[in-house]
Amino acid sequence: MTTPTTSLHAEIATLLGEGAVVPPGAAMARFIDEPRRRFHTAAQAVALPSSVEQVQALVRWAAAKRIPLIPQGGNTGLVGGQVPLSGQEVIVSLERLNRIRSIDAATGHMTAEAGVILEKAHEAAEAEGAIFPLWIASQGSARIGGVLASNAGGVQVLAYGNARELCLGVEAVTADGRLYAGLNTLRKDNTGYDLKDLLIGSEGTLAILTAATLKLFPRPAAYETAVVNVAGPEQALALFYRMKAAAGARLTAFELMPRFGIDMLLRHGMMSSDATASMSPWYVLLEFSYGEADRQGVLAEALEPAFEAGLTDDAVLAGSLAQRQQLWAMREQMSEVQSREGASIKHDVCVDIADVPQLIAEGMEAAERAVPGIRPCPFGHLGDGNIHFNFSQPIGADPKAFMAGADAVHDAVYEVVLRLGGSVSAEHGIGQLKTKVLEEVKDPVALDMMRAIKQALDPHRILNPGKVLA
Amino acid sequence: MTTPTTSLHAEIATLLGEGAVVPPGAAMARFIDEPRRRFHTAAQAVALPSSVEQVQALVRWAAAKRIPLIPQGGNTGLVGGQVPLSGQEVIVSLERLNRIRSIDAATGHMTAEAGVILEKAHEAAEAEGAIFPLWIASQGSARIGGVLASNAGGVQVLAYGNARELCLGVEAVTADGRLYAGLNTLRKDNTGYDLKDLLIGSEGTLAILTAATLKLFPRPAAYETAVVNVAGPEQALALFYRMKAAAGARLTAFELMPRFGIDMLLRHGMMSSDATASMSPWYVLLEFSYGEADRQGVLAEALEPAFEAGLTDDAVLAGSLAQRQQLWAMREQMSEVQSREGASIKHDVCVDIADVPQLIAEGMEAAERAVPGIRPCPFGHLGDGNIHFNFSQPIGADPKAFMAGADAVHDAVYEVVLRLGGSVSAEHGIGQLKTKVLEEVKDPVALDMMRAIKQALDPHRILNPGKVLA
Repeated sequence: MTTPTTSLHAEIATLLGEGAVVPPGAAMARFIDEPRRRFHTAAQAVALPSSVEQVQALVRWAAAKRIPLIPQGGNTGLVGGQVPLSGQEVIVSLERLNRIRSIDAATGHMTAEAGVILEKAHEAAEAEGAIFPLWIASQGSARIGGVLASNAGGVQVLAYGNARELCLGVEAVTADGRLYAGLNTLRKDNTGYDLKDLLIGSEGTLAILTAATLKLFPRPAAYETAVVNVAGPEQALALFYRMKAAAGARLTAFELMPRFGIDMLLRHGMMSSDATASMSPWYVLLEFSYGEADRQGVLAEALEPAFEAGLTDDAVLAGSLAQRQQLWAMREQMSEVQSREGASIKHDVCVDIADVPQLIAEGMEAAERAVPGIRPCPFGHLGDGNIHFNFSQPIGADPKAFMAGADAVHDAVYEVVLRLGGSVSAEHGIGQLKTKVLEEVKDPVALDMMRAIKQALDPHRILNPGKVLA
Repeated sequence: MTTPTTSLHAEIATLLGEGAVVPPGAAMARFIDEPRRRFHTAAQAVALPSSVEQVQALVRWAAAKRIPLIPQGGNTGLVGGQVPLSGQEVIVSLERLNRIRSIDAATGHMTAEAGVILEKAHEAAEAEGAIFPLWIASQGSARIGGVLASNAGGVQVLAYGNARELCLGVEAVTADGRLYAGLNTLRKDNTGYDLKDLLIGSEGTLAILTAATLKLFPRPAAYETAVVNVAGPEQALALFYRMKAAAGARLTAFELMPRFGIDMLLRHGMMSSDATASMSPWYVLLEFSYGEADRQGVLAEALEPAFEAGLTDDAVLAGSLAQRQQLWAMREQMSEVQSREGASIKHDVCVDIADVPQLIAEGMEAAERAVPGIRPCPFGHLGDGNIHFNFSQPIGADPKAFMAGADAVHDAVYEVVLRLGGSVSAEHGIGQLKTKVLEEVKDPVALDMMRAIKQALDPHRILNPGKVLA
């Protein structure tokens, strides 16, 4: 760790070529400035390998010198997993490994390198008449390696699963620079331990992903999309059960939104006019996706008895693709709009789907006790039990003073989550932001198993040290 | 390992109570006589804990004494994972941990202990109007712990996934007797490494599963089932692509069967009359499952253009539930019937779905070269790329001489499988039967990672030693 910086840069350049190493300074900014603006440590260097062999050479070099490496995709992570912690690290950007190696839409798979931008993967699938159904807000810059390393979720997990379920196999460089050749297109393979799923979601601490085989699905022939008024999360949950019974696997999105979020969108001009049917304390955005041979119109049909049962009193159904986009835009901008209303405190939590109403009621109450006047904006994937439990500062409060009290709000929300047997990080992972809370809340036996696995696969702590496990 | 047997039995009885230990002898037979009749070693004892605490006490005792333990469910495994290898082992039967702890069909999960028989889990789900969609031939005796430890598959993986995908969380006793409290009902949880999926499929070598949370699905409102004539695997594959495009997630089974298998069923009276439409060299059994709001009749509609395209010339559609069962009975008895035709050599392999025709053509050819007159009976899950590539002995051959040449047939089939990037154990695992072949064919980096994980989680090799990893 005491290698002088200039020699270090020269050594990387020798391994990867000139132009493949970025020293601290302006050019490094895009690799270390992360979306939450919480972490500000520079790396010793950014290395930009162009091939799997170069990644291996780099890891062998780092292992010999005991230089910690941080694998990085699109630098869109929300918990600081992809940026420096100690400042002794070299960031390994995978952005130059950006080929789609193969695609077979009929059979349903595509092999993409770690640096492929998620949106490019979408486009490649769509060009073959298929979909890769993982949609997240950062898809224009997030890359496949990071998407898998963090086991990203998104708005269609309900129907298609998380990144983990969407991946058939991975290729990765181990901590000693060897290549784990785990790419495959098999739907079944019981030859030993499930290394694929262990590496997925390990946030770059067990190996560096270099490529993955991803599942593709037939492109739906039609969508039906609605934003439905509901009195509260309990009515939303009852509606979810009905819609699931009616549509089964055709129900591909079920998202909760509070009126407060819609009001913010209007107030800050992020929506030109109110796209909801009418005023309501809460809304659900739901979507059905149809295959070619399916009978359509099921959404409207299924809503009728829900009206009669008093679960909703109004709804808007998208009559066009443009209107569908308008409805989705409300949901997609609900996180971003909070930054226009002063400071905000965020949580990405999951509970049993049946417990979402209790989570929201008790979490709002507990946060209000901690910070009177705090403005809750819980929204997100009710169909997965995954709520982005966000709070805007009280009107007129000092943002810095509000953020100084963030721990009390975290404690209040996490107390409810843990009492319900939930997760304090549903989608975003642990990174460096949540290592302390993980130690406090995770089953100690699980933590010990994780530490033993880390020690077994990365004994010299070369790979993203201090992330996930402090 | 040198503890005298009588004292060992007394010690187990002290821990678990009288009547919870079975010494070698007649009473042990049902725990060590396994379905393939290949392995015949007695254990030192069978221990029958009645609670999770008793499992923990037993493991702590075994760890202190360095006595190897074999976790066992219903003793239905096909690769000897659940029966002794050295004879020094104590079998830990989980059959007394047989409670269904909770069930919530609306939300879609059930928590069952490791000793619950799979069929009982089916019944519990069905009593609540739901399904647990994992159907395997041994479901009347297989138990949830074994089903998960071996990541069982079955006939509806196509639509619902393997055991791994059907499980939300597990509870397990670690090699030092602590409890990993990983039961949960969360659809999303990114708080650390994926221990659940690591334990699933590890065949009892990393921990002893004591309970699991399983996913439930709405019971289909209707099925449409057909057995369709096809000229060969290529036509079957083309038909698969068409059916998948037509039905998407509603296509819940797509199974290939050779005429040879049907002939055997008729010859040995396992089917009273031919249930196929007419003579054909191959058949596909396919099934669509419908939700309440779905338009039915899609199967017949989708078959029409397949007729016109020459992919099939005849088919039988089940007109009743009884006829559906009759069609399924052909498929379900295809493995068993082979034992009536003398000796048989079996393989459970998986390739890319698109490569199934090549696998079958080249595998049959290679086996015929190895043993002239050998009678191939490849059948199974074409929709997953998973073929049970079985062979009956030549007519009139000596069964023992035929089996003595089994390795040449294995080599011939595995050469094709590996050349196609396939798996030599799609569903059944490694156990003690395939440890040698695993060492020969598995990526050496993957093997080293597996060994490192085994060493990390079971440093004293208490848990099922010699299984999976020799």
